[in-house]
Amino acid sequence: MKVERSSSSPKCGDCDDVNHDYYDHLKDHFFVPPLNFSFVDNGVFRSGFPEPPNFPFLQSLGLRSIIYLCPEPYPETNLEFIKNNGIKLYQFGIEGHKMSTKNRENEVECFSESNNSKNMLIQLVVLSLALECNAASQPMVTNQSLIMEPFVNIPDAAIREALKVLLDVRNHPVLIHCKRGKHRTGCLVGCLRKLQKWCLSSIFDEYQRFAAAKARVSDQRFIELFDTSNFKHLPISFSNSKR
Amino acid sequence: MKVERSSSSPKCGDCDDVNHDYYDHLKDHFFVPPLNFSFVDNGVFRSGFPEPPNFPFLQSLGLRSIIYLCPEPYPETNLEFIKNNGIKLYQFGIEGHKMSTKNRENEVECFSESNNSKNMLIQLVVLSLALECNAASQPMVTNQSLIMEPFVNIPDAAIREALKVLLDVRNHPVLIHCKRGKHRTGCLVGCLRKLQKWCLSSIFDEYQRFAAAKARVSDQRFIELFDTSNFKHLPISFSNSKR
Repeated sequence: MKVERSSSSPKCGDCDDVNHDYYDHLKDHFFVPPLNFSFVDNGVFRSGFPEPPNFPFLQSLGLRSIIYLCPEPYPETNLEFIKNNGIKLYQFGIEGHKMSTKNRENEVECFSESNNSKNMLIQLVVLSLALECNAASQPMVTNQSLIMEPFVNIPDAAIREALKVLLDVRNHPVLIHCKRGKHRTGCLVGCLRKLQKWCLSSIFDEYQRFAAAKARVSDQRFIELFDTSNFKHLPISFSNSKR
Repeated sequence: MKVERSSSSPKCGDCDDVNHDYYDHLKDHFFVPPLNFSFVDNGVFRSGFPEPPNFPFLQSLGLRSIIYLCPEPYPETNLEFIKNNGIKLYQFGIEGHKMSTKNRENEVECFSESNNSKNMLIQLVVLSLALECNAASQPMVTNQSLIMEPFVNIPDAAIREALKVLLDVRNHPVLIHCKRGKHRTGCLVGCLRKLQKWCLSSIFDEYQRFAAAKARVSDQRFIELFDTSNFKHLPISFSNSKR
């Protein structure tokens, strides 16, 4: 099946074929998995937000559905892609973070871009303070702005509904994604692992592998407290689903 | 199938059942995946070295074979486990690192444990120098000891043989593991991704997700230079194997 794309798609610079644009070139030569892509279980994948260069790779997975965990409308190009490939979209609009955290998020991102060792020391200390503050849910004063508990709580009801879609094998193969494939996706996968009876330390280890420096105590607390008792009656046919 | 274990297995402290020891307890309550465990593709898994608490989880995967990438003999407990579960062991003895790198490895591990910010600055600089040195394959003098190119080259022939076993679906489900599931396992999975036509940046991204602070330029160079042309005739039935 051919990926539909707009006339503004970049042209392939390596081929003479005028009908062969950039994405055809990628498709013929290499697959470009989305950011933070990984297999979760048989027929279940996770990633950050898929961009057009990722479409040929996603096609190769033969997806039947996508679980999208952001409140923002799905982009037109992505809607075209899923329509042309018969993929069903399940959207659960979970906010990524409070507006008030924007400055801090930018700060932390800026830290990792600096190469100056002296600055790095100062930045690490500030970052460490910020993380301690987050862990203790205490307000912190920095850069003359007050930062409250910075991250919204993951809404239990949305994760619960998303989990029902995820557990329904008629939706497989399914891709779970949010923006960066770290927090919202990490929480949903973490709750799936609870249903699969993984011990918490292994669930957190997996969460942290994807969230890396952006790991949030609040997300891990959410996974720990998530009540799975309502899912006991649902069939789970994953590879390690003994209960 | 029951996991055979020695009489020295710890007893379950949470249950009154005298026939119910620690590993039964784990099995009945939670799965403990091995360190750095992950799904790689349909019927392919990766991890660090499996320990007895991981056996019930591995049982749930219904493994048919294990690809073990270290030269050290497989421990008796693990041999018992695979024998009792009809799992075939394929061992490819790849050295983890040269003896001369031991001190430096310890140094780096020690760095990450220090909480002192001033020390951290110095350590980051030394670490940064060490990484630069590694990238350029130049000797470096530090702590009055000469450190040559620190890591052994991954042997091409061993990875090539391991890849043949990995690609044979009669061996699936298969677990690939070394000691920590970072370097040797990361190289084999990286070569598999090359066969699956993943672009290098995505292959390196996956490698680094598992190796984290221990990522080696030499491993990534090995993956980049690995010649896949001899594998073109082999059937690959993975989820994204178009060639």
